[in-house]
Amino acid sequence: MSSAVRRARRPSGGRDQLLETAVGEFITRGYDATSMEDLSRAAGITKSSFYHHFTGKEALLRAALERAVDGLFGVLSLPVAQTGGPAQRLRAIVSEQVRVLMRELPYVTLLLRVRGNTETERWALERRRAFDAAVTGLVREAVEAGEVRADVDPALAARLLSGLVNSIVEWYRPGRPGSATLPDDVVNAAFTGIVPAPTDRA
Amino acid sequence: MSSAVRRARRPSGGRDQLLETAVGEFITRGYDATSMEDLSRAAGITKSSFYHHFTGKEALLRAALERAVDGLFGVLSLPVAQTGGPAQRLRAIVSEQVRVLMRELPYVTLLLRVRGNTETERWALERRRAFDAAVTGLVREAVEAGEVRADVDPALAARLLSGLVNSIVEWYRPGRPGSATLPDDVVNAAFTGIVPAPTDRA
Repeated sequence: MSSAVRRARRPSGGRDQLLETAVGEFITRGYDATSMEDLSRAAGITKSSFYHHFTGKEALLRAALERAVDGLFGVLSLPVAQTGGPAQRLRAIVSEQVRVLMRELPYVTLLLRVRGNTETERWALERRRAFDAAVTGLVREAVEAGEVRADVDPALAARLLSGLVNSIVEWYRPGRPGSATLPDDVVNAAFTGIVPAPTDRA
Repeated sequence: MSSAVRRARRPSGGRDQLLETAVGEFITRGYDATSMEDLSRAAGITKSSFYHHFTGKEALLRAALERAVDGLFGVLSLPVAQTGGPAQRLRAIVSEQVRVLMRELPYVTLLLRVRGNTETERWALERRRAFDAAVTGLVREAVEAGEVRADVDPALAARLLSGLVNSIVEWYRPGRPGSATLPDDVVNAAFTGIVPAPTDRA
């Protein structure tokens, strides 16, 4: 995605900074265990200044999860995700999904930890499921088009694909060596194997 | 409760049952947010009965994480994990690791959520790292033996492999259709691709 698009979604200002701080605290302490006191302290402002930007913890969670969800759904509407056969579109989506994970790391990390304890969390889970359903549908199309091996259960393949991609939030950190090739590396792992035999080489 | 009744509940079944209940609560509420009150209520026994089996929350966490860690390291010492070339051993380890995840699902789920907030959690993280290092070493051996494509960075491959395998705790539930073939399906996904092109067929 172009940096222009990225800038458009990240207006500079105090609100974004507060959101980033809050997400860091939610990830470290857990959402339930984090109070508005904790967040104000971490941000170095008063609680009332914090409330000036966000009505409360749930609003912060919602804004953070929306950012992750918007990033993921943004992938599905990219021209590259709508061009070519299903396998080609799937490759593009996996690659761009990895880019979103890398760029929006804390927000996606939070999204992946959501368990459905609040209305906002249930909304986020529903959006995750919708994204996964879109990918499952594409795997199914790829199988039907003969572009992906027919002995693969599309639902299982989509779950494993999602697991592979999402697992990078556990260890990826910005600036890590090898970051530039990570989207391609994950695509290759998904399509030809993580530890492929040399005979599988294209 | 009379001591006779309590003794009757003491055989390992009782202790295991309490551990299972506790792990369920830790996963649902989060370890930090769970009190011994919560655990006693969930188990339907008094707090002092609970303390009769475990000295406290940390002891429960330790017992649960030991069970997961023992399961994983048990895989490495299986004859099948020590027989044949590195790629063959790696296949066996991935397959058996999936079996451990399926069999010890709540314990491994807890292990994968550990962030290092207590001494026990740091111990568990260190054991996870040791397990991952063993797998990374084997991937490296497989690359050096020419059994795995040389353009794969072994450390990255091991991380992706671990991510793929561990991601099944997010959706796998006992008795799910397709469970019997899951270990083989994950091995195939790792070695030939999650969504392989038909030409990759062996």
